[in-house]
Amino acid sequence: MKEDGIGSGQIIRRKTDGSFEYHHDDLTVEEPLEIRIARKTLATTMRTPGHDEELAAGFLVSEGILRDPREIANISTPKRPHLHPLPEGEVDAQRQVRVNVVIVDLAQGVKVKTNSAQRFGTISSSCGLCGKTSIDAIRQNFPAIVSDKNVRIDIETLLSLPPLLRELQGEFARTGGIHAAGIFDLKGKPKVVREDIGRHNAVDKTIGRAFLDRHVLLVSGRASFEIMQKALSAGIPIVASVSAPSTLAMEFARESNQTLIGFLRPPSFNLYSHIERVNLEHS
Amino acid sequence: MKEDGIGSGQIIRRKTDGSFEYHHDDLTVEEPLEIRIARKTLATTMRTPGHDEELAAGFLVSEGILRDPREIANISTPKRPHLHPLPEGEVDAQRQVRVNVVIVDLAQGVKVKTNSAQRFGTISSSCGLCGKTSIDAIRQNFPAIVSDKNVRIDIETLLSLPPLLRELQGEFARTGGIHAAGIFDLKGKPKVVREDIGRHNAVDKTIGRAFLDRHVLLVSGRASFEIMQKALSAGIPIVASVSAPSTLAMEFARESNQTLIGFLRPPSFNLYSHIERVNLEHS
Repeated sequence: MKEDGIGSGQIIRRKTDGSFEYHHDDLTVEEPLEIRIARKTLATTMRTPGHDEELAAGFLVSEGILRDPREIANISTPKRPHLHPLPEGEVDAQRQVRVNVVIVDLAQGVKVKTNSAQRFGTISSSCGLCGKTSIDAIRQNFPAIVSDKNVRIDIETLLSLPPLLRELQGEFARTGGIHAAGIFDLKGKPKVVREDIGRHNAVDKTIGRAFLDRHVLLVSGRASFEIMQKALSAGIPIVASVSAPSTLAMEFARESNQTLIGFLRPPSFNLYSHIERVNLEHS
Repeated sequence: MKEDGIGSGQIIRRKTDGSFEYHHDDLTVEEPLEIRIARKTLATTMRTPGHDEELAAGFLVSEGILRDPREIANISTPKRPHLHPLPEGEVDAQRQVRVNVVIVDLAQGVKVKTNSAQRFGTISSSCGLCGKTSIDAIRQNFPAIVSDKNVRIDIETLLSLPPLLRELQGEFARTGGIHAAGIFDLKGKPKVVREDIGRHNAVDKTIGRAFLDRHVLLVSGRASFEIMQKALSAGIPIVASVSAPSTLAMEFARESNQTLIGFLRPPSFNLYSHIERVNLEHS
């Protein structure tokens, strides 16, 4: 890439004193992933490589294509290219063995509607008339959370989650370009933490992993309608975000019996719905 | 919504001293938008209402469905519901007149491939093998930027853009849940600034508006592959982000002859490709 003045892997940084330096930068990796059921391609999405099987499982659940992990017989990632030759001059050993395809084999007798997945990223059953219609359409696929008085979290536990998530993000966090999602139990114990350049992918990876024992989902970004929808698809009753929710996310949470917490920046936070799951007495 | 303990429009805030208060919060509005060409639905996407015609135009351009604004005869947004009755009890006067549908009528004789738009949000022509393949596939649709020695920006101008974008964001910025994208000329004069809960939508709105005279695109979030792709579709040579780019965004920029600037946080920034468009001498 010498023609553009910067060597491969190098960047130019303007420092605070106005001087320039060449250095190497750790960028968040982004590559496409093709998700297949048997031989049929369902979707190709950009993502940060890693935990691709979980991303595929979470995608299938949150899109309403699958409901139960037992519907999946096997998830595999081919380890060598078998469709196309690699680009000439490609010498990265990692790349030569990684193929950005994940293949989901369904259990015997399981049939799926792959039709809806062709619109990955869109709200397939909405008519576009209003948010209420979208909520109703989603709710036909995923029932509201069932109320359970035992599902309740203390404020101290809630406030402990953001620093814990950052700590568990590990080395990726330093690139500054990555989102994280974590599922925690009601005592604040982390169940699964996943990262991706895409907010939605990070959530898909966590719910693809955590089909069971899911209580609190914490996301490093904003809580939009689709994040709430993904949480509901996995039956998660409490969703916390370090940033802002949208109007529709709040409406959705209220109608889906989900507790929505925003701006979780200790010691402060906002509660947008179903406060009964947060123990406000032990502050 | 009394059953969940919080009145409609109200939230509960835990303040830094540990006490609680009920108050009203300005949330970023999120609603679905259905994009149609004549009577055919191309996509339904969640977005922040406003500038819907531009969002539709930008979507059609960045998806490679249209190349030239003259291919559009008319873009309209129906002002009253005509497909479904409003939900019972809906009294918001704004909502009763807003219909979340935008209809694009093409100029006589113009035909489009609507097939690819069914995979909105995915990389339609990628095989999922590697990023290089995706870049090649995109580049078949959009040629690289043509080099022009007059397209060059001073550092002072570059550094002036982030505060200017924030200032132009106006009242929406206070909700904390909104992304902005702006197009500026080489002297730093803003051409168009748009906001949306979705990073991609904010970019679609700006490029849908600014078919001409586009030089520098500044986005408030990260610079992913898709952002670079959208910029290329609009022929934008310089893309700046206040946050991190991804590996694929950098590779794409290098091969598409685009200047990519990241972490634009005055007085610092990173240059990832094609430094020749930044005048490093006047620092």
